[in-house]
Amino acid sequence: MRQIFHIVTKAKNFDRVIGKAKLIDGGNGRCICEMKVEEEHENRGQTLHGGMTATLVDNISTIALMSYNDGTPPGVSVNMNISYLKAAPSNTTIVIDARTLRVGKRLAYLSVDVTNKETSELIAQGQHTKFIGS
Amino acid sequence: MRQIFHIVTKAKNFDRVIGKAKLIDGGNGRCICEMKVEEEHENRGQTLHGGMTATLVDNISTIALMSYNDGTPPGVSVNMNISYLKAAPSNTTIVIDARTLRVGKRLAYLSVDVTNKETSELIAQGQHTKFIGS
Amino acid sequence: MRQIFHIVTKAKNFDRVIGKAKLIDGGNGRCICEMKVEEEHENRGQTLHGGMTATLVDNISTIALMSYNDGTPPGVSVNMNISYLKAAPSNTTIVIDARTLRVGKRLAYLSVDVTNKETSELIAQGQHTKFIGS
Amino acid sequence: MRQIFHIVTKAKNFDRVIGKAKLIDGGNGRCICEMKVEEEHENRGQTLHGGMTATLVDNISTIALMSYNDGTPPGVSVNMNISYLKAAPSNTTIVIDARTLRVGKRLAYLSVDVTNKETSELIAQGQHTKFIGS
Repeated sequence: MRQIFHIVTKAKNFDRVIGKAKLIDGGNGRCICEMKVEEEHENRGQTLHGGMTATLVDNISTIALMSYNDGTPPGVSVNMNISYLKAAPSNTTIVIDARTLRVGKRLAYLSVDVTNKETSELIAQGQHTKFIGS
Repeated sequence: MRQIFHIVTKAKNFDRVIGKAKLIDGGNGRCICEMKVEEEHENRGQTLHGGMTATLVDNISTIALMSYNDGTPPGVSVNMNISYLKAAPSNTTIVIDARTLRVGKRLAYLSVDVTNKETSELIAQGQHTKFIGS
Repeated sequence: MRQIFHIVTKAKNFDRVIGKAKLIDGGNGRCICEMKVEEEHENRGQTLHGGMTATLVDNISTIALMSYNDGTPPGVSVNMNISYLKAAPSNTTIVIDARTLRVGKRLAYLSVDVTNKETSELIAQGQHTKFIGS
Repeated sequence: MRQIFHIVTKAKNFDRVIGKAKLIDGGNGRCICEMKVEEEHENRGQTLHGGMTATLVDNISTIALMSYNDGTPPGVSVNMNISYLKAAPSNTTIVIDARTLRVGKRLAYLSVDVTNKETSELIAQGQHTKFIGS
């Protein structure tokens, strides 16, 4: 998982935007990361950008899936739904905790909680459905 | 709208990632843009990244809302749901068409179609609910 | 389509709750119905119940899919997202307009607008992703 | 909560469809129910109907909210998203576990897990955003 994480976060493609996320724990369908909200992650209101939140939900849950059952190849996304519960201002350290809920024949169902590390309050909650690759 | 668009796309914050989108038309609650999919927008499969799609849905619908009724101040996001219908490979020109469906007292409801410019096929469809600012 | 519609709306199973919907038009992946909101469809606030709206989105889009390409067998639902834009009070006649956006190898993507027939205002908008049956 | 539950499940309006759900536990923003899947809850495939699942997500999370902080008045729904992970065949006993994630000034955020009582497998997961009443 550390290797996958390294490749994703050092990319030149859009994956680069999560480059400052740090892998904390994971494996067996789960991936937990931390990230400090900095200017590059923010909207004009100087809080975590909703598109950045969505990108974290997408990528960290994909890494979680890749660790499921000793390696599950991810395919393209089918659906992503994100509830934004509370803003995360500049310098907040956020925890992104992605879980694999189910892996069927064709689809994987993933769930992600984004919380404020200090207060444990939920910032966002995401549901992500993906095809499984081949 | 051209001014808003300029400010958003030239930002140093996360809005910068839509910097290559071009404003095509808009006003009165609508905003239509185009963008060519390049490496910086892609996932490892070399198609438009789901997080980039989400960021386009978020930002372009927010700009659409800002043009509603001669200027509606946007607030934070409440919910965003995105269906990913078809991949957009490298060099595809995509059209992002955001519409304001309803502006109530507290919330605005927005809808976004992302299509392949050449084939007119849907790539993604987003629903975005936002607070209205004050 | 009239036959499918008849079978669905006369059922003893949960499909029965849409029994008062009337087929207006459809075919080729689309299905348009009308229904007057009565007590049996309402919540305690005497407006269309969110669960009833969800059931209309589910069923009418499934009938739309069944008419796609001279008959597409529907499978189980993968995801359904509904935005509730405005309440529909007792006796409102609503129009349910379901469209097939895409039919891939495994999944079908459907979209449903629920509007107030008199005012044309949007009451709800649904996105529905389904497996295709076999 | 027992009283609220009784009123909801004995209604003549659409709430009646959850009449066979039994309250197991709850209070302080949470509500846990059980229900055996019978013909009246099923689709033509003789599994729990997606619209019935949506109605359970809607109603049980609303009852959970009503118990939050010694009584929070629920308003209308803003958004509901449901992932359908696995079918629940006839006679399955399902557990519906609804939690209040956050109650802000205007909106409440709720989450619902629907599981198979015997196997503990997830059948569906719902996210529900509601206005708070007044």
